[in-house]
Amino acid sequence: MIILLKKHVTQEQETDFISQLKEMGFDTHLSIGTNHTIIGLVGDTSTIDIEMLKAFDIVETVQRVQEPFKKSNRRFHEEDTVITLQNGTKIGGGNFQVMAGPCSIESEEQIIGIAQSVKAAGASILRGGAFKPRTSPYSFQGLQEEGLELLLKAKEKTGLPIVTEIMDSAHIPLFEEVDIIQVGARNMQNFELLKKLGQLRKPVLLKRGLANTLQELLMSAEYIMAGGNEQVILCERGIRTIETYTRNTLDISAIPVLHRLSHLPVIADPSHATGDAKLVRPMALAAVMAGVDGLLIEVHNDPSHALCDGAQSLTPEAFASMMGKIQAVRPFAER
Amino acid sequence: MIILLKKHVTQEQETDFISQLKEMGFDTHLSIGTNHTIIGLVGDTSTIDIEMLKAFDIVETVQRVQEPFKKSNRRFHEEDTVITLQNGTKIGGGNFQVMAGPCSIESEEQIIGIAQSVKAAGASILRGGAFKPRTSPYSFQGLQEEGLELLLKAKEKTGLPIVTEIMDSAHIPLFEEVDIIQVGARNMQNFELLKKLGQLRKPVLLKRGLANTLQELLMSAEYIMAGGNEQVILCERGIRTIETYTRNTLDISAIPVLHRLSHLPVIADPSHATGDAKLVRPMALAAVMAGVDGLLIEVHNDPSHALCDGAQSLTPEAFASMMGKIQAVRPFAER
Amino acid sequence: MIILLKKHVTQEQETDFISQLKEMGFDTHLSIGTNHTIIGLVGDTSTIDIEMLKAFDIVETVQRVQEPFKKSNRRFHEEDTVITLQNGTKIGGGNFQVMAGPCSIESEEQIIGIAQSVKAAGASILRGGAFKPRTSPYSFQGLQEEGLELLLKAKEKTGLPIVTEIMDSAHIPLFEEVDIIQVGARNMQNFELLKKLGQLRKPVLLKRGLANTLQELLMSAEYIMAGGNEQVILCERGIRTIETYTRNTLDISAIPVLHRLSHLPVIADPSHATGDAKLVRPMALAAVMAGVDGLLIEVHNDPSHALCDGAQSLTPEAFASMMGKIQAVRPFAER
Amino acid sequence: MIILLKKHVTQEQETDFISQLKEMGFDTHLSIGTNHTIIGLVGDTSTIDIEMLKAFDIVETVQRVQEPFKKSNRRFHEEDTVITLQNGTKIGGGNFQVMAGPCSIESEEQIIGIAQSVKAAGASILRGGAFKPRTSPYSFQGLQEEGLELLLKAKEKTGLPIVTEIMDSAHIPLFEEVDIIQVGARNMQNFELLKKLGQLRKPVLLKRGLANTLQELLMSAEYIMAGGNEQVILCERGIRTIETYTRNTLDISAIPVLHRLSHLPVIADPSHATGDAKLVRPMALAAVMAGVDGLLIEVHNDPSHALCDGAQSLTPEAFASMMGKIQAVRPFAER
Repeated sequence: MIILLKKHVTQEQETDFISQLKEMGFDTHLSIGTNHTIIGLVGDTSTIDIEMLKAFDIVETVQRVQEPFKKSNRRFHEEDTVITLQNGTKIGGGNFQVMAGPCSIESEEQIIGIAQSVKAAGASILRGGAFKPRTSPYSFQGLQEEGLELLLKAKEKTGLPIVTEIMDSAHIPLFEEVDIIQVGARNMQNFELLKKLGQLRKPVLLKRGLANTLQELLMSAEYIMAGGNEQVILCERGIRTIETYTRNTLDISAIPVLHRLSHLPVIADPSHATGDAKLVRPMALAAVMAGVDGLLIEVHNDPSHALCDGAQSLTPEAFASMMGKIQAVRPFAER
Repeated sequence: MIILLKKHVTQEQETDFISQLKEMGFDTHLSIGTNHTIIGLVGDTSTIDIEMLKAFDIVETVQRVQEPFKKSNRRFHEEDTVITLQNGTKIGGGNFQVMAGPCSIESEEQIIGIAQSVKAAGASILRGGAFKPRTSPYSFQGLQEEGLELLLKAKEKTGLPIVTEIMDSAHIPLFEEVDIIQVGARNMQNFELLKKLGQLRKPVLLKRGLANTLQELLMSAEYIMAGGNEQVILCERGIRTIETYTRNTLDISAIPVLHRLSHLPVIADPSHATGDAKLVRPMALAAVMAGVDGLLIEVHNDPSHALCDGAQSLTPEAFASMMGKIQAVRPFAER
Repeated sequence: MIILLKKHVTQEQETDFISQLKEMGFDTHLSIGTNHTIIGLVGDTSTIDIEMLKAFDIVETVQRVQEPFKKSNRRFHEEDTVITLQNGTKIGGGNFQVMAGPCSIESEEQIIGIAQSVKAAGASILRGGAFKPRTSPYSFQGLQEEGLELLLKAKEKTGLPIVTEIMDSAHIPLFEEVDIIQVGARNMQNFELLKKLGQLRKPVLLKRGLANTLQELLMSAEYIMAGGNEQVILCERGIRTIETYTRNTLDISAIPVLHRLSHLPVIADPSHATGDAKLVRPMALAAVMAGVDGLLIEVHNDPSHALCDGAQSLTPEAFASMMGKIQAVRPFAER
Repeated sequence: MIILLKKHVTQEQETDFISQLKEMGFDTHLSIGTNHTIIGLVGDTSTIDIEMLKAFDIVETVQRVQEPFKKSNRRFHEEDTVITLQNGTKIGGGNFQVMAGPCSIESEEQIIGIAQSVKAAGASILRGGAFKPRTSPYSFQGLQEEGLELLLKAKEKTGLPIVTEIMDSAHIPLFEEVDIIQVGARNMQNFELLKKLGQLRKPVLLKRGLANTLQELLMSAEYIMAGGNEQVILCERGIRTIETYTRNTLDISAIPVLHRLSHLPVIADPSHATGDAKLVRPMALAAVMAGVDGLLIEVHNDPSHALCDGAQSLTPEAFASMMGKIQAVRPFAER
């Protein structure tokens, strides 16, 4: 960390400040210029609060040299993390998986039917929403516990591992048989939930918030990993921008950037990002080419009667066609 | 709600679609133009999901006429809501209150000392953080339960009602003696927490998320109100924009817009928005002039030793000076 | 265009308003509901100003049904536009071209050397900046007229058509031998410049502004086309978002969306979007897969001595390697 | 400027790099830590291109210490700049002026009528658009030269100085009698226009772009000032954010921040920012309280028949009422 002091700081102020930094456990490393004094801070600065340093009257600016994330940081863990689900399915480090299924679980018939279709088309993990984060309290909130039970039936019937979203740490016991617990974009900085997921030893799929930076995403992964649960899958799902034609803007560059910064697997969700079934396919292919480790795709047998997000769901036929294309281009993907 | 059908829709498709709308409980109101058919939907459309309608192949666009929020909507509740705390302090409807105190509660001496200073300067509510939502798991997370106890001591000592942030619905029992429960920007769409706060009969201060629209803020208020808790205070605290000099951009226009759309009290938090003590005063005064019902201000006796957010904290002296100015200009405020 | 009137509008106000709409040359088409009257406007509404309609006291909301762009609109021109340069090179409608070269033209040797390298690697158009839009007046502003002359020499020497940026309509005469005139992101809404380029009969490469929507981009294309110059190439070059790790966010979804809305060719510029040479390759490949008609790539023989934007320039070797990959995946591209 | 080198840089690379910096005319100032070498650059770094430094393989990060703007920078010019118009009207340094008038000049009667009303209400400068930057080529483009002539008639008739927008440097000769030349938000980075305005000796009102930072605004002011024209008035007019209810978000915090960074006068335009006449008044008052040196307000005698932007125009009566309030609160304004 580099701290630049203001001009006209007295010797006494400087000495005082340095002794405070030492009390906090840092070695300092001074460099005195004609106009400014620069202090280099040596030690583990990930615990330090930049705002606190800026509150000192004599400080002009503070700049981090090291990223504030540690356990998710590729600098300290060069190898890709590979996450292995209970049935042996692997994600990351060259293992690519497609997670597909409906936005909402609606009935036993629906979820099992879709599960069979997506499995036949090559998906290896089943997604389905039981607890639904809806903007309006008056919208369908998902089948909740009942939905989870139906999803487990589909898992049993098809052998597909399942991924579904958690919205409250109080529900953790309900997720025991769930293979991957999803944290939605709106809960990316629900730190209490993240801490509790850090106590589990189960994969967590962490979605980037609508207006969160990649560094903030990694800091949220850090909350889970700091608790000892290192099985985190990062998910780019679109950010809010000035564009209004698409629901959000899928940030494809997040994929190579996250791979550079972190060893964790990175997947993309083109369905929520675009909100438009016709855009899912080109964006899925773009994400594959940019090196993603997996995709999260909404598939519904009857999109116009879906209880949620029908406009962005692929039919099983469209999904199967897209999967064929993905298999053809995967060998060319960047990584 | 107005639904515009695509060109070249067949009579049969149209009839089919309309009968589905009727099954959902809506009256329809048809208008057939040369190129397009327009369907007006009559009934309570707040429960309807626009995305679902868009998933129909024959639909070109859908536009809401009525806002999707009801209980927070001024159309259905013309009078300003006035929230009365247990000690009789009122917020809204012409009642203006300043909530002040430290970012984090650090010790009994600290919180009581600051409480006494801000009370002397004219603050009527004490703020203080016990549970702190920090971007990094390695930063100070607040004194938690112990912090709440110290805050209660300060309440007892000074008679000031207190406001403090909740981060997990599991903590609700700890907040029994808290006068106003704050929901932070990062939890604005933590819908499970909002639902549980809706079960209480206690004021909730709901902060706007960093990248949330005013409509989304009102929909989150709706989650609390739908549960029967109508004591919601809305708080503008800055949004994330392209500007990097300030931490966030305090959206002053949110104040008159929220007053137009809703009957709920609206307050502003210039401390978190700007992240810079020197900007707190002009922004607080601008918010007052735009008609805000209250302010949330960080005050610390020793900002450069604050355990959190020192850079944006006012000293008690600066706070007292600002309060004098606020009292002078309040009579001119717009509303 | 659909105009929704407020509740409680009198019969007289309504009649008045409709007669004004008729004076403007529109047929109206009335639909009277229980609460609201809806007016459908029939005729060419592309000339109408929504703001003006909203200024009427009796108007609640106004919604466009038809997009405000006409000449660039695929609805009225289903076939892809193919732009043919003087040497016969075609862009659009299945014709894919890579435009490569340095950010700034620095010397005859430099521009000719790079031109030869990029041609050898498969680029079919040479890019190079003579007039440079720099944020600071103190930064290198390009070689200007002299740069253009050097670029023309490189064209002559290699046979490659050239594309270069114009910054002032007064410079148009200097661009006579330029094959494609580029309008930079910062001039996307320099309407006087666009009008003058509309008087030419020469291809214009129009870059999307940093915070402009796709509809605004198409409206700017419309300015050029309205003057009779229909040879416009649209370019996605990244938008400003909340992410700070990359310089801008390349909006890959803009590619399929622009192809849906418009018949004009669409290219992408991953160099300026990312500002980082290592990200150019995955983003270029993602853009190819999403169906782009061409790429604009910065190549420099000695990036760390480039007078401008070295950090984002590929070496000729890295460029050649990327071109090989692009040729391999192009057959799989979406379109 | 502080340059941090990567770990594992060889002695030779370091020496090489430093000698290159010296060739560019900088003194360097070395500080060697356990992990990293830091180079401090001494000299006028405003001409240096950060991107160029980042292109060196051995560079980890580069951070500016000094702002890149010089002539507009308060560090080098502590006193507020006061701009004096030909009739003696002063702006800045405690002199507050309201510029009011219609969006578009429509007729002699209209512009003179409005000029007389706004003068009577206390405006000291007349605004009116002759050249109009419209998103659509099919919208009314202003009366152009004829509009300028009418504006000059209104100036003559009322004695009010005038401000109007320029859209093309070729029009400069038409602006000889104009007191303040306005550069619109969309031309804020039309650098060729800025350079030519820098050759004049006439006040320029420079509006902040829709998605430009305050530093970029000051760099654009720098373009004008670098040419020798130091009479620049900065104007905050709203930025594009995630909020959709208002047209743009007026960034009130820009006012105190610009006053801190620069000595130039700062005004605000609440009419364009909000796009809504009912929000103009509270936002104008908020801007006054935050210390603005002037306001730009749209006034129209018949807003619903305005040829442009009627929805945001105040009637003369509403304007007069607002002026009364402004005069009452100005003595309390921050500064």
